[in-house]
Amino acid sequence: MTAPFTAHDPRTGQALSPHYRDAEPAEIDRACREAAAAFPTFAALPAERRAALLDAAAEALLALGDALLIRAEQETGLPRARLEGERGRTVNQLRMFAALVREGSWVDARIDRADPKRTPPKPDLRQMRVPLGPVAVFGASNFPLAFSVAGGDTAAALAAGCPVVVKAHPAHPGTSVLAAQALRDAIAAVGAPAGTFALLQGSGPAVGQALAAHPALRAVAFTGSYRGGKALFDTAAARPEPIPVYAEMGSSNPVLLLPEAVAARGAELAAAFAASITQGTGQFCTCPGLLLVPTGAAGDGFVAALGQALAASAPGVTVHAGIAAAYASEAAARTKLPGVRRVAHAELAADTPAAAAGASLFETTAAVVGAEPRLAEEFYGPAALVVRWSGAAELTALLGALPGQLTGTVHGSDADLDAHRAAIEALLGRVGRLLFGGVPTGVEVGPAMHHGGPWPASTDARSTSVGTAAIFRFVRPACFQNAPQSLLPEELRDANPRGLWRQIDGALTRDPV
Amino acid sequence: MTAPFTAHDPRTGQALSPHYRDAEPAEIDRACREAAAAFPTFAALPAERRAALLDAAAEALLALGDALLIRAEQETGLPRARLEGERGRTVNQLRMFAALVREGSWVDARIDRADPKRTPPKPDLRQMRVPLGPVAVFGASNFPLAFSVAGGDTAAALAAGCPVVVKAHPAHPGTSVLAAQALRDAIAAVGAPAGTFALLQGSGPAVGQALAAHPALRAVAFTGSYRGGKALFDTAAARPEPIPVYAEMGSSNPVLLLPEAVAARGAELAAAFAASITQGTGQFCTCPGLLLVPTGAAGDGFVAALGQALAASAPGVTVHAGIAAAYASEAAARTKLPGVRRVAHAELAADTPAAAAGASLFETTAAVVGAEPRLAEEFYGPAALVVRWSGAAELTALLGALPGQLTGTVHGSDADLDAHRAAIEALLGRVGRLLFGGVPTGVEVGPAMHHGGPWPASTDARSTSVGTAAIFRFVRPACFQNAPQSLLPEELRDANPRGLWRQIDGALTRDPV
Repeated sequence: MTAPFTAHDPRTGQALSPHYRDAEPAEIDRACREAAAAFPTFAALPAERRAALLDAAAEALLALGDALLIRAEQETGLPRARLEGERGRTVNQLRMFAALVREGSWVDARIDRADPKRTPPKPDLRQMRVPLGPVAVFGASNFPLAFSVAGGDTAAALAAGCPVVVKAHPAHPGTSVLAAQALRDAIAAVGAPAGTFALLQGSGPAVGQALAAHPALRAVAFTGSYRGGKALFDTAAARPEPIPVYAEMGSSNPVLLLPEAVAARGAELAAAFAASITQGTGQFCTCPGLLLVPTGAAGDGFVAALGQALAASAPGVTVHAGIAAAYASEAAARTKLPGVRRVAHAELAADTPAAAAGASLFETTAAVVGAEPRLAEEFYGPAALVVRWSGAAELTALLGALPGQLTGTVHGSDADLDAHRAAIEALLGRVGRLLFGGVPTGVEVGPAMHHGGPWPASTDARSTSVGTAAIFRFVRPACFQNAPQSLLPEELRDANPRGLWRQIDGALTRDPV
Repeated sequence: MTAPFTAHDPRTGQALSPHYRDAEPAEIDRACREAAAAFPTFAALPAERRAALLDAAAEALLALGDALLIRAEQETGLPRARLEGERGRTVNQLRMFAALVREGSWVDARIDRADPKRTPPKPDLRQMRVPLGPVAVFGASNFPLAFSVAGGDTAAALAAGCPVVVKAHPAHPGTSVLAAQALRDAIAAVGAPAGTFALLQGSGPAVGQALAAHPALRAVAFTGSYRGGKALFDTAAARPEPIPVYAEMGSSNPVLLLPEAVAARGAELAAAFAASITQGTGQFCTCPGLLLVPTGAAGDGFVAALGQALAASAPGVTVHAGIAAAYASEAAARTKLPGVRRVAHAELAADTPAAAAGASLFETTAAVVGAEPRLAEEFYGPAALVVRWSGAAELTALLGALPGQLTGTVHGSDADLDAHRAAIEALLGRVGRLLFGGVPTGVEVGPAMHHGGPWPASTDARSTSVGTAAIFRFVRPACFQNAPQSLLPEELRDANPRGLWRQIDGALTRDPV
């Protein structure tokens, strides 16, 4: 038997009953084998049944009512209002994928008609996206609902036709059990195989490593630390048959403040970014951790105002004490670095819980970051590093050398934007989403959202974990040549009763063949 | 200086002048840096300019006339008519991508309109595919034009907006130099940066390894052996910033012969597969190397007829002596394996060149393959292994355990197909393209073709190396939030002057916003 563990209330440090224990190797193996056994049946369900499952999961999640919110609040310390909003987002994601599956054109059906008179005869070719097989999804600590058991990756994988084995995040095991029950109820309601979904608990890396290595699984989706994501990536690449790993591993979300914008709106920007940095105690993937500020008086004023706002901000509670400890340790290390100045920090009161973290602001120069690129890496928590730059050339070089990012944000007047086109191009090359104005926290869920980016923001810059395009993580193309109508998936048959958009001989149409 | 090497005429074994030499580390680095420097300019070219480049490359390739065909014939021993056909395919691929780029909807533009009245305000989000950056493409030995310097991967990468550094295959360096000049002429003709394309020679793995490791490159595309592809995959995964590797690494292309089809058409099938196995001396990626034949008299008759046809077939010349040597060595090893019978082989005359290979046919049982899965792996050359099976359950288990394949082919009567649905499903799970009837050799180039498959057929089952979807190898999504019209790529601006198909608020339309 593996050792038991419990969740803790980060607001008090108190252990929460009941005890959970890590899944044993035999349980992990069974979950993966059952997922593989369920795959052919689940993948062959009509689209309407898969859509109904996702809708039923949304209903079942809502039907958990206060029990889910209370447990999530206890396990994460996230405020009730935030959790209500996150539940709404989770439910909306499930429904969004239900609508996507129902509409059906996402399969990218392509039909090249035969030409028997050509020499050599041209075959009938029909292609569409098919599910990869059973996949592993990892719950993230910072979104106990929307990026966890019934979150975006699970919804996308089920929508694609892939059974899911979830590794629960050990900080919110009870919330995970509740959400898992909602999924199981939905699966039963539509008559999908029970093996379509499984939940495994695990307090350390062993369970996740076993999943990434399991021969029955065909992909891994993860949101968390660089260390955790990279370990899964390495394990999956070393398998006899490697599989894709979609790991979102952190981002410092550079913000490019251009001279006229700082001069005209410095105080307003300082207030907006102070709020964005401290929102959710800095635990958003898109927390703006790197602020590129021009040298000069206007920039000095912005930095001072931001420092004052952060110093005055109320410390928050992180979702577990490990995050606060890592944050404090990194803040202490940065304070000692040559060329780095601590501008301001919010003091913690003597009686605050171990999971508390106060905001901090550091400042350095482009030259220092050039010599010590590690400074540009994610510093998780309510902190930001200001990097002062001088001139478009230095700025462009700094941006081009950044690690990959989920987001980049630009604040500039029209003249600023025009004068810094090369810098903006360089920034676009390093990010998944480029914002003009505003703050990067707050990730809209919809068809046009892209939440991903070049390494190490994600192990796979070609994919997103938010929005309808997330379904592409879990599919591959399959092509049928000269297949009888009866052996084709419905989406590729001549009749097209659902009116899908399809490419016929290269041209999009909703017509039958 | 690296040691010089030459091509050899495989029909005679004679060295062909001139000498070539492996690219030095400094040359490799320069080519990659110049590609990186060219990237922003090349990526920003209007679609029409990129399309014109591809069309110009097709023209320039044709303008090389006999010189290209003569050199290719000398370096590969492939017959003139085959090379003419392959040149036609290469030119058509370049034009197909030109048309794709001109039409433009491949970028999958998505626009979610803003709603400032919502709480919180909904931003304007616009997403499209953007090029990854400079990429490495490896020439394959078996298609000196269509899968080489100006082949499908190069055409797809240039279409996507990615500069290309090609590693020439050492068996056809002169053909590669000619095709490279055609590309350079096309690049100059449209005024694209010279760094958009470079050719590097290399007689061993060092140059390719240096490309896979080079920090400026963003993807690798390769067609060749498992050993070569796996080495590139491992190098790319071990980089500080790993990059995608699209390696097509071989396939045994299982053919499923069902009982009524064998009984009704055994002789016809034997003739068709003898021709497919020996076509191009067995050097097609889709050569049918694994024939799953039911036990019983009809199957016995098929095997005997196929053996006779292969024994009587004329030996061919492979594209270089190394292939023939590996083929002979593997054939000798299989002859000694317990449970494996050599059914027939075509004798080589005493005076044949070292690159010659004669067809051979082996036979075993599903039980032997179950115990020795290596037997199901690719055996490159004009050979096939017959695997005798008995009963749908044994067949389904055999198919489910196969390594990933480019293709699978099914021959069956309507009743056969109906009685073996589970086996066909299992086969679909292991292949990229499933054929009903016919032979797998001959890969149509068009929107619906998929040439890829689960590992080890490809390192990335999500991608194809043939057809318009090959462009997706070289792109990633990028999202713009609240961007001014002037800073958006043309494809995402409101006006949509080219009439692209775009998703606006989730619905496909060619309308402006």
